[in-house]
Parts: sequence; structure tokens; C-alpha cells
Amino acid sequence: MVSIPTAPAWTPSDAPMRTQVSAYIKSLQSHIVESLEILDKDAPFKRDAWERAEGGEGISCVLASGKVLEKAGVNISIVHGRLPPAAIKQMRADHDEIPYDPESGKSLPFFAAGISLVIHPRNPHVPTVHANYRYFEITEEGSGDAARVDDQKKVLAWWFGGGSDLTPSYLVEDDAKHFHRTLKNACDAHGVDMYPAFKKWCDEYFYLPHRKETRGVGGIFFDDLSSAPHKRLPPSAPKPSTPEEIFTFIRTCGDAFIPSYVPILAARSDTPFTEEQRRWQLLRRGRYVEFNLVYDRGTKFGLQTPGARIESILMSLPETARWEYMSDMGEEGTEEGKLVEVLKTARDWV
Amino acid sequence: MVSIPTAPAWTPSDAPMRTQVSAYIKSLQSHIVESLEILDKDAPFKRDAWERAEGGEGISCVLASGKVLEKAGVNISIVHGRLPPAAIKQMRADHDEIPYDPESGKSLPFFAAGISLVIHPRNPHVPTVHANYRYFEITEEGSGDAARVDDQKKVLAWWFGGGSDLTPSYLVEDDAKHFHRTLKNACDAHGVDMYPAFKKWCDEYFYLPHRKETRGVGGIFFDDLSSAPHKRLPPSAPKPSTPEEIFTFIRTCGDAFIPSYVPILAARSDTPFTEEQRRWQLLRRGRYVEFNLVYDRGTKFGLQTPGARIESILMSLPETARWEYMSDMGEEGTEEGKLVEVLKTARDWV
Repeated sequence: MVSIPTAPAWTPSDAPMRTQVSAYIKSLQSHIVESLEILDKDAPFKRDAWERAEGGEGISCVLASGKVLEKAGVNISIVHGRLPPAAIKQMRADHDEIPYDPESGKSLPFFAAGISLVIHPRNPHVPTVHANYRYFEITEEGSGDAARVDDQKKVLAWWFGGGSDLTPSYLVEDDAKHFHRTLKNACDAHGVDMYPAFKKWCDEYFYLPHRKETRGVGGIFFDDLSSAPHKRLPPSAPKPSTPEEIFTFIRTCGDAFIPSYVPILAARSDTPFTEEQRRWQLLRRGRYVEFNLVYDRGTKFGLQTPGARIESILMSLPETARWEYMSDMGEEGTEEGKLVEVLKTARDWV
Repeated sequence: MVSIPTAPAWTPSDAPMRTQVSAYIKSLQSHIVESLEILDKDAPFKRDAWERAEGGEGISCVLASGKVLEKAGVNISIVHGRLPPAAIKQMRADHDEIPYDPESGKSLPFFAAGISLVIHPRNPHVPTVHANYRYFEITEEGSGDAARVDDQKKVLAWWFGGGSDLTPSYLVEDDAKHFHRTLKNACDAHGVDMYPAFKKWCDEYFYLPHRKETRGVGGIFFDDLSSAPHKRLPPSAPKPSTPEEIFTFIRTCGDAFIPSYVPILAARSDTPFTEEQRRWQLLRRGRYVEFNLVYDRGTKFGLQTPGARIESILMSLPETARWEYMSDMGEEGTEEGKLVEVLKTARDWV
């Protein structure tokens, strides 16, 4: 029986939000990596700190060829720079508080901090999991170095985004229920309309139109969470609104990651499996690759960003994936078919 | 010693071009499949004929888990239908002979026929190869069933496209030279400016910007070949111009496929290889997946087309691919590094 470590306590401070978010994601990264290392003692994570020439830093924690975890990556990145006019224009669609003068052609300073993780376990009975929590802000020009993290500049626009979703190769209903219930509890503490809205958003976002199936059994997905009314939430819905309230919500979700997933990992990692089940798992990983390379906005945006760290962006891809023409696996009435069925019609789990 | 079958003789006819192209690609498909079956006797191709609800048909010939060929697909498709105004507008950028009235919102009948093949051999010393030859036409409205293949309608616009390119995991310079020389000879018979222009176009097209490398050692790539001046060829360059001349050029290229590739396949399939070399091959196949899913226009267009046959479009993906974070393979001074170097700077092979 594995005992699940609890997240470290958080001490509120009056530091700028960028500083607090940076401290939190660093602490969450350590907590997640150490918790996973308890489960896969033979293959410790490699910790890889990097700097971005254009401004910023990151830490990638990566595990390959473990006994329990085939490939896992837990990344944080804390970057800053200038946002070109075209990007500003696009962002204004969801954030009309961003100042934009089409005539001036001016860029604006931005800051972004986030944690992103993907875990591909070895055993086909253990689902793949993904989570990501992030903070973005646009500021006025600073007095000194325009992009310094500790430079006190007026924040013109800010928002949080994130989510977590589960991708099984074989459906274990209890696991899907546990994962969703844990996320729902995290959300409900901050407003009961959030889980249903973000659960639906997750089903819509992690969808492969060309396969007519969702990537997995979902979870939650949200973006653009700020003080402004949110287009996915009823106008009257109670929701966290101040930066501090939303940051507290984000921490609740981030801290829920380990309890949402590690019990599943611990319970199923020793389940015996066949070569055929491994083959099916690799076929499902092919679909994971298809989603990430064809549809995932974060991946696409990353690949197009000059100077982006490709190794960190593509860390989400599995160690091995497989494609068969007209595969005979996944037929109705089989265990594989049971998964396919649930991917065709999103289900309510709690 | 494998004797390489020669392509069947072609009998000119005065049938409409769509009929002639359809007959040729069917004949070329049989020729290629039968030639490959000589080399991998234990794993015959599965022949899979299909029909498209929206109009048209195809034959997919697919081999999986062969001894020599790990995965191979040789597809033809002969489809027709109606082109929506948005697609017409886009195509006019390269074909101003297409009538387009932005006010009318009218669609136009189209016809498309093509052969497309990808071969992923098992041995890491044998390169992957891809080839594709296609014909497209837009016609005026027919008197009867607007899209029937044998309906004699005035062709308003037509063009050919195609090419073939080689993707080794390990660089064998003689193989790259042989492949390019065979394609150059095929081109030179129809105009000596074509090979240099289409070789350059191939290097530009099969390029992964996020990896800053080409997919492989190239070959030829061309599109929009019609009677009109071609934007990639000098105005004074001799080039095939009538539909019959261009169709003859296409047949020369198509017939060159077997001599360009099969000698390499035959010579290297028994080369001994290590587990490490196999691992490198799977990493390179990961890059192949990246190119096809992120950049290839044909794949992207296919995935977005309602009613498209996904299994045929994604047939190009390898059976297995691999991704490692910050892989230690491909360092300078190694055999793997030698390949990486040649992908960074396109080379002249003939």
C-alpha cells in the first residue's frame, strides 16, 4: 500500500502574482516528481534546468524507461518577452481590456508561467494522464528592463488557464469516476457551476474530429479565467474573481493532481497484461500523437514560436506509438471495443 | 540477385485524359505491388477496394509486418465531386483560368486521380520511400450526371503534380546518388531545367522548421504542371506543355519508381543491424510522423475533408515510431550524426 504524500502548505504573501505563481509551480513540480519517484524507485527523474535566450527559464523533469512509468515529464516554464501586434490582436478577442492600437504597430511586454505534465505508464491497464496550469499577463512598459520578472509594472490584462485529463487504453469505470470526483471536489469548493462547464469544455477540446472520438475520458479544461464574466459560465454563477481567489482555485486543482491519479497508478501497475494488450496500448498512443501534433493548440503554438524549446514541447509524446492500417483491434464486444464506445459518446462520471 | 521487372508498355489512346490517367495509375499500382511482392514473398499485400459515398473509388494495397517491409501502402484513388466556392477561390491563386464569380457562390465539378505510396522497410539500413503522382481537373457543368467519369464535359482547368523522395535512417551516399540520378534521368528527357527546379522544391517542401532539418535526402516534388508558364521554371525553359506531353512526363517519373528504389531495397535488406540502430530508425520514424501530421499539405487537407478515408490518408505513418527527450543518439562523429548533418544542409547528389 502506497501512502500518498500531501501537497506542501501554501503561505499567502503580498508579492506580485507572477512571483507567487512562479513559487507555486516550482513547489508543485517538486511535490509531483517526488511523489512519482516513490512509485518508480529504479528510475529517478532527470532534472534539467534551462534558460531561454529571449527571456526566462524552465525546469524539465523527465523519466524514461522506468519500470512503472514508461515516459513521464513534469515541466515548468517561466518566460517573458514582448508580444507582437498580431498576437495582441488575436488575444483581444477574449480579453478586450488589452490596449490595442492597430495604427501604432506596438508590441507589449508579457509574462507567462506554467506547469505541464504528461505521464505514460508502461502497463496498458494504467491510463495516461496530462495536467497543465498556467498564468499569463500583459503589462505596461516598465521603467527599466521591460521584461524583468521583479520589475513592478502595471498589469493591463491577466488570466489563468489549465486542466487535467485521463486517457486509458482500457476502461476501468471506477478509475474514471475517481479521477472526475477528485477534480469535481476541487472545483466545487470555488463554485458549483465550474466543474460541469469545464468538464464539457474538456470533452470538446480533447477531441479528434478525423477519428470522431475524444482523446480519453476527459477531466477539466479551462482558459481565460479572470475577473471578467466568463463565456462558459452562467452570468449568475458564483466564481473566483480576484487574482487571489483564482490563484487559490488553481492551487486547489494543482494540489488535486496527485490524489486524482496516483491511487490509480498504484492500484493497476502490477495488473498482468498480454502482448495483445500492449499492442492496443501502442495503437492508442498513436491516437495521442495524432491529437497532440494535429490539434493541440499549445503544441501547435509552441512549434511555431521562434526560439521555443522543442524538446520540452514534444515531451508530451509517448516513447512508442503504433499505427496499423484497418486494425482488427477495437471491435464491438471486446475490452478494446468498450473503450472505443466510451470515446464516441462523452459520459457523465459523477 | 533480384531482377527488376520493367513497367508495362503504354498504348497511347485518344480517350479523355481522366480515363487515361485512371488506367495508368491502376497499371502502375499493380506493377509496383507485384515488384515488391517478389522481394517479400512471405507477406503478400492485402488488396482493399473501396468506394467513396460522395463519388469515386480507390484501391489500397497494404502490407504489414513483412520480413523485408515493415509496413507498405500503395494507394490509388479516383474521385469526383463538386468544389465549393472557397476552394475554387484558393485554387485560382495558381490557376487563373478557373472561372470564379465571387457573387454567384457557385461550386464546380472536379475530378482527381492519383497514386500515393509509402514504404517503411524493417532494416534500418534501408531508407523509407514515398512517391505520389496525381491529376486534377475542373470542368464545366455536364449535361447529365455532373460528376460521371465518362461524361464528356469541357475541361476548364487541369494540372498534374507529384514527386518522390527518400528518407534514410543511415546515410549511404551511393543510394542517395542512385535515387537522384534515376529521377534526374526521368526528368531530363522532358526538359533539363526540371530536375534542378523540382529537386529544390522537394528540399523546401519536405522540411521540418521546428527541427531545422529536411525529412530525408529529397528527390523531386512538383505541382501545378499545365500548359501555363510555371512559376518554378525559367520562362525560356523547355518543358512538356500539352496534356499529352505532361502525361508522358508523369509516366516516365512513375515508371522510374521501381528502378529508383528496388535496387537499394534489394542490396541492403540483409545488412546486419543492432538494437541501437533499430532504436535510431524508430526515432527517425518519429520525425516522419511529425512531418506528416504537422506539415504535409495532403495529410492536413485529407484530415479536414468530410467523408475522407482516414485509413488511406494515415497509411503513410510507420508501424512504430519513438520519441525520447533529449536523446543521446545523433551526436556529431557518429553514423547517426552523419545523417543529421546531411539533413541540416541540402546537398546536390548528381
